[in-house]
Amino acid sequence: MPVIDTDIHPVLDARRLTEILPEPWRTRWASGSRGPGHLGYWNPNGVMRSDTALPDGSRIESTPRNLARHFLGVYGVAYGILNPGDALHIGLSPEPDFAAAVVRDVNEAIAADWLPADARLRASLVVSPADPALAEREIDRVGGHPGFVQVLMPSGAMLPYGNRFYHPVYAAAARHNLPVAIHPGSEGVGVSGAPTAAGYPGSYFEWHTGLVGSYMAHLISLVTEGVFQKFPSLKFVLIEGGVSWLPPLLWRFDKNWKALRQTTPWLDRPPSQIVTEHVLLTTQPIEESNPPEHFHRMLEMFDAGRMLMFSSDFPHWDGDTPEFVARALPPALRPRVMSETARELYRLPEATGG
Amino acid sequence: MPVIDTDIHPVLDARRLTEILPEPWRTRWASGSRGPGHLGYWNPNGVMRSDTALPDGSRIESTPRNLARHFLGVYGVAYGILNPGDALHIGLSPEPDFAAAVVRDVNEAIAADWLPADARLRASLVVSPADPALAEREIDRVGGHPGFVQVLMPSGAMLPYGNRFYHPVYAAAARHNLPVAIHPGSEGVGVSGAPTAAGYPGSYFEWHTGLVGSYMAHLISLVTEGVFQKFPSLKFVLIEGGVSWLPPLLWRFDKNWKALRQTTPWLDRPPSQIVTEHVLLTTQPIEESNPPEHFHRMLEMFDAGRMLMFSSDFPHWDGDTPEFVARALPPALRPRVMSETARELYRLPEATGG
Repeated sequence: MPVIDTDIHPVLDARRLTEILPEPWRTRWASGSRGPGHLGYWNPNGVMRSDTALPDGSRIESTPRNLARHFLGVYGVAYGILNPGDALHIGLSPEPDFAAAVVRDVNEAIAADWLPADARLRASLVVSPADPALAEREIDRVGGHPGFVQVLMPSGAMLPYGNRFYHPVYAAAARHNLPVAIHPGSEGVGVSGAPTAAGYPGSYFEWHTGLVGSYMAHLISLVTEGVFQKFPSLKFVLIEGGVSWLPPLLWRFDKNWKALRQTTPWLDRPPSQIVTEHVLLTTQPIEESNPPEHFHRMLEMFDAGRMLMFSSDFPHWDGDTPEFVARALPPALRPRVMSETARELYRLPEATGG
Repeated sequence: MPVIDTDIHPVLDARRLTEILPEPWRTRWASGSRGPGHLGYWNPNGVMRSDTALPDGSRIESTPRNLARHFLGVYGVAYGILNPGDALHIGLSPEPDFAAAVVRDVNEAIAADWLPADARLRASLVVSPADPALAEREIDRVGGHPGFVQVLMPSGAMLPYGNRFYHPVYAAAARHNLPVAIHPGSEGVGVSGAPTAAGYPGSYFEWHTGLVGSYMAHLISLVTEGVFQKFPSLKFVLIEGGVSWLPPLLWRFDKNWKALRQTTPWLDRPPSQIVTEHVLLTTQPIEESNPPEHFHRMLEMFDAGRMLMFSSDFPHWDGDTPEFVARALPPALRPRVMSETARELYRLPEATGG
């Protein structure tokens, strides 16, 4: 009997394929592992800075000792909040128990190896939002550790973060007096939906520019769903999601509240007031207007002294140094944005200047 | 043989159900037809103004004669662009041929009954983006009619509008020298994705406040995908999507372009410049800052005189009158925003003041 096999999978020679592929796709192909890795978005700069390798082969961001010597010390950082990136994408895993195990693993490593190593270090306790009951258990497990000053979740999400699904996370955070923060990078990853309100972008450039959309959606959801009425002591930190979109959004938000508050009777004051009391933002990547004064004017349109906190995003590709951010700010705002607001929020002893 | 039927559907008495339901859900229930209609978002104000009914039982927005007498004349509107709402949601139908037939139907009614009735009227030619080839055919069919001054699509979409899927629409619009516009309202409807980058909102208030997200995503997509390089004469109009989010987004956009332009080599100049040359926005619902000067400052941060055009959104619930918008603008901007920019874009004879 003659046989015709209609489905065979050869594994082609990677070198040969690279040879044939034209630029910039050759570089893009070479930048990821073969297979599903290629389905992410390509940042040609890489996600990590390329200049953090030390002569001994280790990297600045890889040990507390390296970080202290080559980053905290160099830039005069009095306190640094560690937000382990490894643990963020995992929150969008389709496997909630695996995700919960990995974030626990990461929190254990931070507690054992990093927090005791340097008095300037604090960390976010990472949870996976895929199973809020497991997240709550993790917060209860390590939320009393004085080195963990915040609960951290990915901003890529299955549902807007005001949704009642997530309220157990906020209840646990509030019980432990911990702010909840979100960090970008996982929009469109795993079981999260499309990274924009219009669907899937076609480049890292498009994806990264549009990240503000997921931040706006989460913020609107948190307020309209009444999270801050239900948990009146809760603070929420929007890390790395942009800054200057806030005032225009609050204008729109307050205007809509006046017309539509009947549907959210629990909101007893304008959304802008609720946001000002409960929400903080971090600086990086700080917007650069042309002329620079436009950005200064924007900072006058919300309570930046109370709501904005310096972040370097070290060692990611587009990080900002303290000098760069301080220069971008009007002098009067510098003390609060560069340290005081974060010192209050995270209850850190008086900053001594590194 | 005894019979147990495990699935029977009674039809309950609607009056009885209404009686039992507490407020505000009783009002919400009564506001929609039973069934899938309840799965949309509830605007307690209704989508249409309640005060446009005339003594003879007709409505202001229902005939060109009524519109002329009770709207254009009253507010001194020299020209009005008709954007038929009926035809917008249909573009998100899962049935592309049905959608194409309905938009053609609407365009025919506009051409036959409205455009000839009043010299002040112009209209958008509505297309369904579900099948760009059919949309192209519709633009070629009626794009030469002098009363149609624009191609209109819903802003709710399956894909960001820069995606190559839609380029035939832009090719046809460019051939006929017509701007392409998008109008909100269908985010989350039909085969569009979730209305925000974080998933489905929980109220009309949340949904409406977050609409800016889909506008930002479409705009970023149009620029990064090179639509304005491919169709250098094309203008794109963002109707009813907000205004003040634009400057901060352009700062972020230009900053990212500097770092990531390698992935979009066709972009030969900063995104802010491309947007300024090709994109226009309409005023309603104009942001109301507190204090009002903040909005004025925002208008100085982009080329508002060239990019912003008055719109009333009549007869929708949150419409703005010309007086209201003119008062909200700095005097120097009024002539261009209230008429001159639109007159140029749509090639309208000199406005005579209605």
